[in-house]
Amino acid sequence: MDNISSKLLENAVNEFALLPGIGKKTAMRLVLHLLQQDEGRVQQFAHALTQMKENIQRCRNCHNLSDEPLCSICSDARRQHAIVCVVEDIRDVLAIENTHQYRGVYHVLGGKISPMDGVGPSDLQIDSLVQRAHTQELGEIILALSSTPEGDTTSFYLYKKLQGIQVPITSIARGISFGGELEYADEVTLGRSILNRVPYKESV
Amino acid sequence: MDNISSKLLENAVNEFALLPGIGKKTAMRLVLHLLQQDEGRVQQFAHALTQMKENIQRCRNCHNLSDEPLCSICSDARRQHAIVCVVEDIRDVLAIENTHQYRGVYHVLGGKISPMDGVGPSDLQIDSLVQRAHTQELGEIILALSSTPEGDTTSFYLYKKLQGIQVPITSIARGISFGGELEYADEVTLGRSILNRVPYKESV
Repeated sequence: MDNISSKLLENAVNEFALLPGIGKKTAMRLVLHLLQQDEGRVQQFAHALTQMKENIQRCRNCHNLSDEPLCSICSDARRQHAIVCVVEDIRDVLAIENTHQYRGVYHVLGGKISPMDGVGPSDLQIDSLVQRAHTQELGEIILALSSTPEGDTTSFYLYKKLQGIQVPITSIARGISFGGELEYADEVTLGRSILNRVPYKESV
Repeated sequence: MDNISSKLLENAVNEFALLPGIGKKTAMRLVLHLLQQDEGRVQQFAHALTQMKENIQRCRNCHNLSDEPLCSICSDARRQHAIVCVVEDIRDVLAIENTHQYRGVYHVLGGKISPMDGVGPSDLQIDSLVQRAHTQELGEIILALSSTPEGDTTSFYLYKKLQGIQVPITSIARGISFGGELEYADEVTLGRSILNRVPYKESV
């Protein structure tokens, strides 16, 4: 793939190949596919990316990705705002929403504590969670982090941080396989594990 | 993935998911990766795509993708312009270029005859190949199409079309791949490679 006769083509291929899990050959396949589309389609693709990058923001309450200052879940009056489900990122929000088992709201940490990757507690939305627990009248905080060493560490850290506050802290049931990432769990298992959540102390 | 709280995010995910081999989950992973990059990186990505789509053209001689009216291979005086290798698309050009074994030029058909996909001879650069054979002084035309029913059909069609012209038509050698185990080769390939055996001296 070193002798691409067109610089324009090469640039596009190289950009695609920078994406995770996309090699040079896949990148070339994707670019050639786009070349066969109408010019309008390609512009729409490019426009969707730049528009998203320029205008997307974090919800000021739950820190989920949102088009508005307050996301559609936090601004939905029909949700139970006293129940907060703590997750890593928006993919976990989507996974839980797709179970249709949960009517509370979320708190998106933006990752998990992982010293190996240089991610400490201060890099995550932990202080804002503690603040929410202090200022909002919460009935329950559900920890729904991945069942990995990093996820468990983060859960334990949050549990300690939230100790002084009079709000029950629960953890989603270990229905999901150990070592499994939340986003890949099937909907039934994930839904059940939200319904069968247990006090954090009993879950470890 | 139906409840994405952000329309901006959803648009970007949907655009990625239209690409071949990219599902919704992969699309989301790619989009979240881009969201974590600098705004400049995302703009560069979008720019590379639109620039390519707007400005790329087909070489007027070999119909390969090119930034100029005449591609870098056709305009290279060091190549043997009397030898033309006929291939399906630019990926085959790249594959052959990477072998560093070929110093001739190419003719890119833009696909292969495939009635199932609605691709007939008139959709490919066949007439322009016949014209090249008539107007340019060629010493050899090498057919380097895939060894599939469609590739074989296309090769045969080209062979018939080029019948009247006094130029040798060859086909790339087919047989057991170098480094390949005999027991894993398919029966047709193995059978053919026995029938088409060559003197040992020529085989190394």
